[in-house]
Amino acid sequence: MWDGSSNANLPWFKSHKSRVPETDIRDAEAYEFVENGETRPFVSETRTVHKDIAYEDGSTIDWLREEAAERERKRLIGTQRGLHGLLALLQDSAGMWLVIILTGLGIGVVGAWLDVLVKWLGDLREGRCAYGFFYNQVACCSGLDPGEICNEWQSWSQYLGVRSIFGQSLLQAAIYISLSSTSSIQIVFAGSSAVLVKTYAPYAFHTGIPEIKAILSGYVLDAFLGPWVLLIKALGLALAVASGLSLGKEGPLVHVACCWAYLLSRLLRQSGQNEVRKRKLLAAAAAAGVSVAFGSPLGGVLFGLEELDAFFDDGDVMWRGFVTSVIAAVSLQYIDPFGTSKLVLFQVSESGSTWRAFELVPWVFLAVVGGLLGSLLIKLNTAAAVYRRHSVLHDWPIVEVIGFTAITAAISYLVVFLRVQSSELVANLFLECDPAKGDYHGLCNPTATWANIFLLVLTALVKIGFTAWTFGMMIPAGIFLPTIAIGACLGRAVGLITQAWHRAYPNAWIFSSCPPDPTVRCISPGFYAIIGASAMLGGVTRMTISLVVILFELTGALSHVLPIMISVMVSKWVADAFGKDGIYSTWIAMRQYPWLPAREFRDKGQTAAHVMKAASNLVVIHDDGQGCTIKELDELVKRHTYHGFPVLYGDQLLGFVLRDKLRSCIDSMLAEDSNMDRKCTFQPPSRASGSDNSISDLSPLLDEAVLQLRKDVPLELVVNMFQKLNLRHILFSEGGKLTGMVTKTDIVWLLTAGAPHAGALAEKQF
Amino acid sequence: MWDGSSNANLPWFKSHKSRVPETDIRDAEAYEFVENGETRPFVSETRTVHKDIAYEDGSTIDWLREEAAERERKRLIGTQRGLHGLLALLQDSAGMWLVIILTGLGIGVVGAWLDVLVKWLGDLREGRCAYGFFYNQVACCSGLDPGEICNEWQSWSQYLGVRSIFGQSLLQAAIYISLSSTSSIQIVFAGSSAVLVKTYAPYAFHTGIPEIKAILSGYVLDAFLGPWVLLIKALGLALAVASGLSLGKEGPLVHVACCWAYLLSRLLRQSGQNEVRKRKLLAAAAAAGVSVAFGSPLGGVLFGLEELDAFFDDGDVMWRGFVTSVIAAVSLQYIDPFGTSKLVLFQVSESGSTWRAFELVPWVFLAVVGGLLGSLLIKLNTAAAVYRRHSVLHDWPIVEVIGFTAITAAISYLVVFLRVQSSELVANLFLECDPAKGDYHGLCNPTATWANIFLLVLTALVKIGFTAWTFGMMIPAGIFLPTIAIGACLGRAVGLITQAWHRAYPNAWIFSSCPPDPTVRCISPGFYAIIGASAMLGGVTRMTISLVVILFELTGALSHVLPIMISVMVSKWVADAFGKDGIYSTWIAMRQYPWLPAREFRDKGQTAAHVMKAASNLVVIHDDGQGCTIKELDELVKRHTYHGFPVLYGDQLLGFVLRDKLRSCIDSMLAEDSNMDRKCTFQPPSRASGSDNSISDLSPLLDEAVLQLRKDVPLELVVNMFQKLNLRHILFSEGGKLTGMVTKTDIVWLLTAGAPHAGALAEKQF
Repeated sequence: MWDGSSNANLPWFKSHKSRVPETDIRDAEAYEFVENGETRPFVSETRTVHKDIAYEDGSTIDWLREEAAERERKRLIGTQRGLHGLLALLQDSAGMWLVIILTGLGIGVVGAWLDVLVKWLGDLREGRCAYGFFYNQVACCSGLDPGEICNEWQSWSQYLGVRSIFGQSLLQAAIYISLSSTSSIQIVFAGSSAVLVKTYAPYAFHTGIPEIKAILSGYVLDAFLGPWVLLIKALGLALAVASGLSLGKEGPLVHVACCWAYLLSRLLRQSGQNEVRKRKLLAAAAAAGVSVAFGSPLGGVLFGLEELDAFFDDGDVMWRGFVTSVIAAVSLQYIDPFGTSKLVLFQVSESGSTWRAFELVPWVFLAVVGGLLGSLLIKLNTAAAVYRRHSVLHDWPIVEVIGFTAITAAISYLVVFLRVQSSELVANLFLECDPAKGDYHGLCNPTATWANIFLLVLTALVKIGFTAWTFGMMIPAGIFLPTIAIGACLGRAVGLITQAWHRAYPNAWIFSSCPPDPTVRCISPGFYAIIGASAMLGGVTRMTISLVVILFELTGALSHVLPIMISVMVSKWVADAFGKDGIYSTWIAMRQYPWLPAREFRDKGQTAAHVMKAASNLVVIHDDGQGCTIKELDELVKRHTYHGFPVLYGDQLLGFVLRDKLRSCIDSMLAEDSNMDRKCTFQPPSRASGSDNSISDLSPLLDEAVLQLRKDVPLELVVNMFQKLNLRHILFSEGGKLTGMVTKTDIVWLLTAGAPHAGALAEKQF
Repeated sequence: MWDGSSNANLPWFKSHKSRVPETDIRDAEAYEFVENGETRPFVSETRTVHKDIAYEDGSTIDWLREEAAERERKRLIGTQRGLHGLLALLQDSAGMWLVIILTGLGIGVVGAWLDVLVKWLGDLREGRCAYGFFYNQVACCSGLDPGEICNEWQSWSQYLGVRSIFGQSLLQAAIYISLSSTSSIQIVFAGSSAVLVKTYAPYAFHTGIPEIKAILSGYVLDAFLGPWVLLIKALGLALAVASGLSLGKEGPLVHVACCWAYLLSRLLRQSGQNEVRKRKLLAAAAAAGVSVAFGSPLGGVLFGLEELDAFFDDGDVMWRGFVTSVIAAVSLQYIDPFGTSKLVLFQVSESGSTWRAFELVPWVFLAVVGGLLGSLLIKLNTAAAVYRRHSVLHDWPIVEVIGFTAITAAISYLVVFLRVQSSELVANLFLECDPAKGDYHGLCNPTATWANIFLLVLTALVKIGFTAWTFGMMIPAGIFLPTIAIGACLGRAVGLITQAWHRAYPNAWIFSSCPPDPTVRCISPGFYAIIGASAMLGGVTRMTISLVVILFELTGALSHVLPIMISVMVSKWVADAFGKDGIYSTWIAMRQYPWLPAREFRDKGQTAAHVMKAASNLVVIHDDGQGCTIKELDELVKRHTYHGFPVLYGDQLLGFVLRDKLRSCIDSMLAEDSNMDRKCTFQPPSRASGSDNSISDLSPLLDEAVLQLRKDVPLELVVNMFQKLNLRHILFSEGGKLTGMVTKTDIVWLLTAGAPHAGALAEKQF
């Protein structure tokens, strides 16, 4: 209690955790403060918008406060009368839509440019364009009639003017060997990517989706979205994809899209300092990133909805995400980097448009296998990441990348399906065999069925190993495409087995629903590859509806949506039995971002008291109406980094004050008047003792919307409220007395503590 | 205060609103209650699941309590050990999925059956099938080779055996005149529909979507979902559609789907008494209803998400909605009532697959017109509904239906585009003119362009009038199809104008992007019709993303999604300027269901105090530790119908007790021991005075999760919390003292009070 007699310790805060020695704290004394005749309640408005308080990286935003600030901003615009007000309203709305549209356009362009860059890097092994080093072979030779010879594209020997056949071959061979034959060019690409990432933008490594999930849920990490990260991630991604490592560009594209949107919003001064507004824009950009990565605008929106949990119950945000997605997809289609003028990446042939009930048996088998292997992939990847963290590799990331690229290239050289690019492999595995179109590396050779099955299963298994290690190295890397490739190999293998069985026993009862004519295809192994891919994706990512939509927008296989759904569902069930978290949630748990999984939490009968910090362990501000000095508050703010403090009056809970609000208030008070002994109170003026003008009224600083519950509330409900309301803390009181507090960190810890390796990478320095 | 000395009035509740005379209330006296040696805290568990408390129709469910009960149920299943527990878990999960799958199948079948029934009703004017009265012409003649004459289908004259040419013509003419020629068969259909609805199931009238929105948000109206409503709505809908009135089947199909799901869940004892579980199932069914109505599975899911706001932040529910939608769509496609084996209802020709930038001008014009007319349609419809309510028509609904059907038929006879079925009209308006396919009622006659434009605009205007009156009569009626038809007429008219302009001035600078060859089509009026339809729908329903998805699933016009998006957006903006509510929200406001619009609410600086009922006006339970008698509580519950009461201890707020919990507790206490003077207290045992076993502990009845805020919280935040947390009430306290309370009804009133005619139909007796 504040009675003026206590000393050596500030009487109005009480801490069992303070680690700062208290020797430099002066005795607190009661004394009279002479007001200069003028009453100045310097925080006069009850609703002040604290625009100048920026969050530090690593903190969590206060959703309620940010939303209130945004509402206040809109209200201020709305109150302006006449033409000026109308113009301000228009400008506000138009600015937002401008950012949305430019984001969509930009992401479409970046996505197309990446595809072109990857193609150019691949072609660079062969030669160069006569009229421009930066054209790839297709662009260089465009505009020619079919059959015309392209003279503009020069192989290296032509360019270097080597005329003799012998010299030509020798040079070609030398360049090919040095640049491409086994692995050196791939090593160069991967190494450059790692150097770029390590040197210029460590945040550009990995997929980026775990961080984006955390940011969208309120985590502050602006460094992750900087322009430098944008550039390095895009460049490094192109190099990494061209390096032949087992990785995809899908996840990193979402990160690139978010960086781009953030850059735009800062250039156009749109999101300003408002963190909720910024997050709404980032959600739209993430949807557009998925839209471009898979050519799937609807899938992008649903990904934002399901996986990123990003639309905050707000139809407007979903609509903006949809607009951004569609604009991005349309601009990608307009640029048309693949020359197919189609959004569908892996077009499926229409021939296999009917399916038979007995096929559900191999499909469900595939789904179970996909769930098991997906779960295994997550576990291997986690183990690899933890091992890397604690081994010598942690200090030599570039060497690790170069070494593993060499290993990948060497092993891949042995198996034909590992040697080709993953996207090309997937496209061919999804296609049915058609004699008119030729054979893809012997895949359609009916006499080599068992060899193919062996090769496909081998490819899948090796790729699981590669992917588990690659996803987490110091390069930009997505996990979608490798997962699809693994699943497609397995699916195709199962399809080939079923087909071989059908060929061997065409009259078995199980095949009775097949057409009797043996020349008509009954089993379509290409579609089995799609089922395999969806099962594997279901096991690794644990997505449901957005995955199904992405897959059928990706392949155009609308007629087969029911089996895809079944396989995703079964695979998710199987994988969930071995751990509830998908790959992204696992990484979030390992890095320990303050992110709450959206899944339902069930307690075992505990109440809030189970996680609550009791009032006796909290740092609180005691205010009994006599007030406390600026100095004391200043000490409190300097000593403790908690994001806020409960304020008590006697033993009654007055409210909660945020640390940064308090700090900026103290700073501005001290700027006006450096008297450190000025007194302040948190009591509202009506209740403050008498008309004592000498005491500054700090009650407007109290948080307007702090939630108070009883401590015997079920724990489930507390978790549920944190999940739904984006809270940072809940106070518990009984009869007006503070009994304790729960913060978001407590809940995150509660939900992720069970995950294996939770926090294993938390302290990692990039 | 409870001191035993007050009399003539129950001292521990205080009401300024009681309307029941208080003469029968005995004096309250302090006395000793002799416990029979045995301490029986009859509500022993801290978490009791009150399964036996059913909600009455017209009340609102308590989401937090229902969710807690559902969690508890799952927890109990989870705690069962061994095989038994596993089986229970499997059964629980399998039962839910069985309902989901059967719902999807059933809705697909019902949708297909409705289409067949409508066709049969139409064919009934012509004749009957020889081998079964219930086959329509297509089904009767199926299985024949092309060109073969169908002898199974008999016209009425053949059936009645009239052989002479003269007699045949006469009979045919007589039947045709009596049954179909102008309007009599339509009047018979509409009249039967109205009689069915009025007599057997008044809830089957109208579209049903407003009620479903209210139910999904927590309103209790089980009578609306009964099996009788299902039957009558389906039958009445088929009759109404066949009657030629200006109505669609889309909205009512959603209602039918919900009835079906509810019936199934009761048959399979799945949802049980849990209201949240029931609503999750209904949400999935509603999505499936839209899926079948439009052949649009994704549109169904997004409709559920955007318009019904039905997925409660729960990925699982969305996934179930998706599964149900797809199963429904697939089973509809399998039954194939239209014989096209396509889901796409209005297939658009691919010819118009490119569009020019200048076309944005007429399209934006269409969007503005659509927004204006959509807003007008809502206002006309509201005015018609209010007029009907207060005029003599209110007592003669069947006469009104018959009379208006006659008027519709008579006026429609004059204009060719009004005479045809709306769905047929829309399908043809969406198609481009193709000389090979023939002309549709002169629509493609290039010499009659201006006549066509006049006819189309006339049709649109007349249809607006028809629809505004029809939507709200005592028959099942949807507003989607008429709105599409109005928009398509306008769009086609604008398309024809643009085309005529282009033909007149092919070299004008504005048309410079058109192909120079005049035989190549530059303007596609069919696509203008789609734009018109989306603009009109945007204006009437105010949906965004789900509307766009439904439209492109409906037409297959994926390449044109950008202009459709722009038109929906502009039209919504324009219409929003004349009133924020779409047609469904308007009806909800008129009927005054306790439903909170999801839109953002902005206060003008008010705080919660603005809507709060002050503590002095509340009926509260005072408990100062001496306890109160059962009789007093019983009187309180009998006298007041509020759904709960704050409990005070002295002037400190203890918590909140729900009326039905309290009532069931009192009932069970009285069943055990009819002593009305037994004492109870709401104080937790630890704080209750001493070890007085004679006082029953009612503290477990206190609501576990009542929210307490300070009354100077911004009003916006209070509204926001009601919207996001599905609350029924918030208590306001300061320093532990109750200051007031806000209920959901207060917030609904706050948000809808501004709407014109809010509550105009509230007291309507069906």
